[in-house]
Amino acid sequence: MQALVIHAPGDLRVEEIETAELGADQLQVRVRCGGICGSDLHYYQHGGFGTVRIQQPMVLGHEVAGMIEAVGSAVTGFRPGERIAISPSRPCGLCRFCQQGLQNHCLDMRYYGSAMRNPHVQGAFRQQIVVETHQAHKLADSVSDGEGSMAEPLSVALHAVRRAGPLLGQRVLVTGCGPIGALAIIAARRAGAAHIVATDVGALTLEKALKVGADEVVNVAEEPDGLRRFAADKGSFDVLLEASGNPRALVGAFEALRPRGIIVQLGLAGGEIQLPINTIVAKEFDLRGAFRFHEEFAVAVELLNKGLVDVKPLISATLSYRDSARAFALAADRSQAMKVLLNFD
Amino acid sequence: MQALVIHAPGDLRVEEIETAELGADQLQVRVRCGGICGSDLHYYQHGGFGTVRIQQPMVLGHEVAGMIEAVGSAVTGFRPGERIAISPSRPCGLCRFCQQGLQNHCLDMRYYGSAMRNPHVQGAFRQQIVVETHQAHKLADSVSDGEGSMAEPLSVALHAVRRAGPLLGQRVLVTGCGPIGALAIIAARRAGAAHIVATDVGALTLEKALKVGADEVVNVAEEPDGLRRFAADKGSFDVLLEASGNPRALVGAFEALRPRGIIVQLGLAGGEIQLPINTIVAKEFDLRGAFRFHEEFAVAVELLNKGLVDVKPLISATLSYRDSARAFALAADRSQAMKVLLNFD
Amino acid sequence: MQALVIHAPGDLRVEEIETAELGADQLQVRVRCGGICGSDLHYYQHGGFGTVRIQQPMVLGHEVAGMIEAVGSAVTGFRPGERIAISPSRPCGLCRFCQQGLQNHCLDMRYYGSAMRNPHVQGAFRQQIVVETHQAHKLADSVSDGEGSMAEPLSVALHAVRRAGPLLGQRVLVTGCGPIGALAIIAARRAGAAHIVATDVGALTLEKALKVGADEVVNVAEEPDGLRRFAADKGSFDVLLEASGNPRALVGAFEALRPRGIIVQLGLAGGEIQLPINTIVAKEFDLRGAFRFHEEFAVAVELLNKGLVDVKPLISATLSYRDSARAFALAADRSQAMKVLLNFD
Amino acid sequence: MQALVIHAPGDLRVEEIETAELGADQLQVRVRCGGICGSDLHYYQHGGFGTVRIQQPMVLGHEVAGMIEAVGSAVTGFRPGERIAISPSRPCGLCRFCQQGLQNHCLDMRYYGSAMRNPHVQGAFRQQIVVETHQAHKLADSVSDGEGSMAEPLSVALHAVRRAGPLLGQRVLVTGCGPIGALAIIAARRAGAAHIVATDVGALTLEKALKVGADEVVNVAEEPDGLRRFAADKGSFDVLLEASGNPRALVGAFEALRPRGIIVQLGLAGGEIQLPINTIVAKEFDLRGAFRFHEEFAVAVELLNKGLVDVKPLISATLSYRDSARAFALAADRSQAMKVLLNFD
Repeated sequence: MQALVIHAPGDLRVEEIETAELGADQLQVRVRCGGICGSDLHYYQHGGFGTVRIQQPMVLGHEVAGMIEAVGSAVTGFRPGERIAISPSRPCGLCRFCQQGLQNHCLDMRYYGSAMRNPHVQGAFRQQIVVETHQAHKLADSVSDGEGSMAEPLSVALHAVRRAGPLLGQRVLVTGCGPIGALAIIAARRAGAAHIVATDVGALTLEKALKVGADEVVNVAEEPDGLRRFAADKGSFDVLLEASGNPRALVGAFEALRPRGIIVQLGLAGGEIQLPINTIVAKEFDLRGAFRFHEEFAVAVELLNKGLVDVKPLISATLSYRDSARAFALAADRSQAMKVLLNFD
Repeated sequence: MQALVIHAPGDLRVEEIETAELGADQLQVRVRCGGICGSDLHYYQHGGFGTVRIQQPMVLGHEVAGMIEAVGSAVTGFRPGERIAISPSRPCGLCRFCQQGLQNHCLDMRYYGSAMRNPHVQGAFRQQIVVETHQAHKLADSVSDGEGSMAEPLSVALHAVRRAGPLLGQRVLVTGCGPIGALAIIAARRAGAAHIVATDVGALTLEKALKVGADEVVNVAEEPDGLRRFAADKGSFDVLLEASGNPRALVGAFEALRPRGIIVQLGLAGGEIQLPINTIVAKEFDLRGAFRFHEEFAVAVELLNKGLVDVKPLISATLSYRDSARAFALAADRSQAMKVLLNFD
Repeated sequence: MQALVIHAPGDLRVEEIETAELGADQLQVRVRCGGICGSDLHYYQHGGFGTVRIQQPMVLGHEVAGMIEAVGSAVTGFRPGERIAISPSRPCGLCRFCQQGLQNHCLDMRYYGSAMRNPHVQGAFRQQIVVETHQAHKLADSVSDGEGSMAEPLSVALHAVRRAGPLLGQRVLVTGCGPIGALAIIAARRAGAAHIVATDVGALTLEKALKVGADEVVNVAEEPDGLRRFAADKGSFDVLLEASGNPRALVGAFEALRPRGIIVQLGLAGGEIQLPINTIVAKEFDLRGAFRFHEEFAVAVELLNKGLVDVKPLISATLSYRDSARAFALAADRSQAMKVLLNFD
Repeated sequence: MQALVIHAPGDLRVEEIETAELGADQLQVRVRCGGICGSDLHYYQHGGFGTVRIQQPMVLGHEVAGMIEAVGSAVTGFRPGERIAISPSRPCGLCRFCQQGLQNHCLDMRYYGSAMRNPHVQGAFRQQIVVETHQAHKLADSVSDGEGSMAEPLSVALHAVRRAGPLLGQRVLVTGCGPIGALAIIAARRAGAAHIVATDVGALTLEKALKVGADEVVNVAEEPDGLRRFAADKGSFDVLLEASGNPRALVGAFEALRPRGIIVQLGLAGGEIQLPINTIVAKEFDLRGAFRFHEEFAVAVELLNKGLVDVKPLISATLSYRDSARAFALAADRSQAMKVLLNFD
């Protein structure tokens, strides 16, 4: 079986690896599709982010879908031939955070394709993988492998939207319309947001933002003061979903955010940022981090299966895993691509 | 100008009344459409409900839409010819509940067509009405007068759904699929519910429930134990929206509702009910009343204007106000009609 | 070793039983004190409550404190001679509710002295017991065994108060001032309630209510309309903690509870009750069940150890377990006793 | 009548001013005591803070208590001779934030002694003042004028603690133990915090922190890594109340704060700060601003009146308003003084 293994920045190789043995409670899966995530790009371009650095060769990838090839002897409820989205999240279930329902903060998390722990947890950009049944979520026939592999980033967006509290009837600003920001728009719309404004600096992303449900977009490269029209009477947005990772986007939205506005910061913004803390105090903002997900993976798959969300507009291209250099280059070019998928057949 | 005035149970008359003088900050509106609500029916059939009884002749009606005919001398932002939905809610703005943002509990509320206070507050089933600008919400061209008159009951449903807390990804049971229950389905779907099951005892209402977004329906007249299949492992629904006003529907859902499940009781259920309080304690349910609405009216109109909800399947018929006896009889017959509208032209 | 075993209503025997073997991760404890709870009384007087009935002989008791006699070979952090309060709650840790942090709703709970499952879970009214380390909470020297045995009912009260949401500055009504109601007063005061009014029908309980922190008490036997003075302007209490189990107390408080008031129902009220659901709807009450506790046990012991709560006024008497008939009779007589403790030496 | 008027940094004068006329609904009050707040110090030392600068002469002061001298003709419920704490907060009651119960974000706030609007709102460091009845809160005989003047900063602390959500049983870290930090300790203890750790860089403030209820203190000047012992397993504090205004205190606490920990930032920290946003994201912190108060003023007075909080340990000195230079110098010296009061007799 072949896998995509990162050795160092820019050094991503197709290598032969072995498949784990199938346990009695496990599923053996033929991986069919995998999405390239921002963190995969960080490993590829920079060898990591912040203090998280590749120490050993590591299979990349955590956004995958596939087909069950074999089921363990004790497995019920799954059959070979079923197509599934695979959750990359494997919390321990026993630590104090798992016992509080905060599995995304598990003290012993094993998340695919992550260098956060050492030895690293190997990823899922591979042709075959053995998974636990709790990781497997069946896909409806109407959902393609590509859409299935987007269950993971959609889960991240759903989790972030949940962190914002109820959105029904709320006015929402989304800053940054890459794949995660665009999925946040989809999630916010699904959660009942009444009005969604999205900002970015690129034409493609803003076009996609409109496509997936934003009511208005502002190109802040062309119109740096574009949010000022929302600033009257201390601001009009109830919620800010910050998905750009750019501190200027975060701070630039403060005047347009109403007192008691809720800010959810998604994704990793790369280190220290400057914040006008007095504004946070005086307007009593509520700035919340959002990190990964837990039960939202099942929700993501259910919403996809029922057609209650549509992620297809965000899929820009599907390339063979053998063509990973081109795929990663494309994924890094936000003027050309939103989500880039790898085909593992 | 003519109006529909209730004098006693069954005694609903078309009468001439005068239009109030137009104040400087007010709007004079040509009423074009009005929906018959359950409370209108209660006044018509029984002269009221609970301790609320008609003491004097009262114009009925609080679900109306119309067109602006004239604007007061100090009005800005509205023009004659604009079509609006009219909120029937006029809180005082000054009492302690208004100052807490709980305007639906105003100590001096003046709600159209309600006998709760004495003298009663006259209603809006009339050809012409003078309203405050805060009651007026402009309708998009794509929204008919009939849909506009449904902004009020939709507000009630949105308020109830908000009382349930965030629904994104939740499993929701709706008991009772009359107009309010059906609108609760629409609101729950809009708020991101992952799975919605609806129960009722009638074929028409359940057909409409499916039409507006329920995933499954159960006819509990035909299948009294139809919720048992959701009862495993202490129950599977996260939220129950009870819109039947029937205590058996409420209590019958308990086994299917998970521990810490949230119950929102909408509408008026008519007096005392028997409740197994031990189940509420042992499963730590959270039973919340939902009464009218406040800021949800603006949300309702915005969602209608943007096409984010579709209430058209719930409009069964539109009759002339001169034909009120037939209209009220139809509105009372759930085997034939959901929402019945009156035309005031 | 001796234990108190219930065989049938009124048939409570001192019997010899065997101590379980001490596992590597467990503690062997000399039980020194145990409190008689309302549910112990129900088993003793009626053989159970609701559908929960004694099917086999069962050791009673779940409110106990003792001294460690021996520690298992793998235990760290505990030593013989240390005094502990023992949590009777042993959730499975693996079911979906445990994994959501809702251990009190565990699908496989083993709670001491409970006939809810069959075979019953044997209780802790015994001279010696083997417990898991997670059940053991060390007592400060300043805390007596008797106070330590009250950690359990205090946990119930703390959990109920948490279910009510933040109480800092709130106006709280407590109906029913038996041991649980009185502990609810203590917990509400500790949580920052600004004003606490308590009602009951007995002189002793109301005297104790004042002693442990109520600002005012109302004897509703002598003054049935005693809450009317709190009813102006739709009611003045923010929160009702209902601990009487008497539906009249619950419903009688409605007029004094403000719109959006929160009601927490503690304890088991015995079956069906009549509720004016229209009031719950019109005032948008929020009626929440509170059942047992989980993490509150550690909080209870910490508050006791630091002297931040004082439960001593609630301890009416301590009798030998050999004198159980007299102890249970006393515990059942609210004109003479609040909490009655058993001494197991 | 005399007042303390700030003209420029360091230029604080005793001047004669006139008393406003007493309206029918107002109270004329003899001011007896006023506390020097951090913002008073900022005006005195620097002429303001951030973009808020003195443009005209302004009477300072907003923490005052006094005695009613005369009541307007329409006033009921107040009598000359009654002692009151005076809330400096006068929201408009009509704007959208007032109508949402967020009066501290009023679009037309008139807060005593604040240069935020222009012309400035004159303050209460004066011998006589006319106030609205809603500003007046009666003091019990047991509460001194000095304690009464601390109702205002206590309100700020209570508001901040409420912003943190329920604290019953929580582990709380307070960074910065000046008057506001110390009052936050008092408020957190009153709200049921199970364990409170306080940090500062001075001996006096930490001594006071222990005095008013902290369980442990850490002098981070002497022991810069003093919070490390709380950092195991991703951190042990549930809540951080940041009252130092020092970004290093804020960021230095991150390792000791558990995932999903809540941070409340009180007071004004002076401009831009550097924040490791990735930690906020990865640990899903919730950083909330807290600004002034609204209904907490009544709560503060009620808690003082009932002896449920004790602010006396925080009163360092009371000087005549004629001796303002010495009083302000003392108030600015945290090695010698916590709260310094002015006597206006």
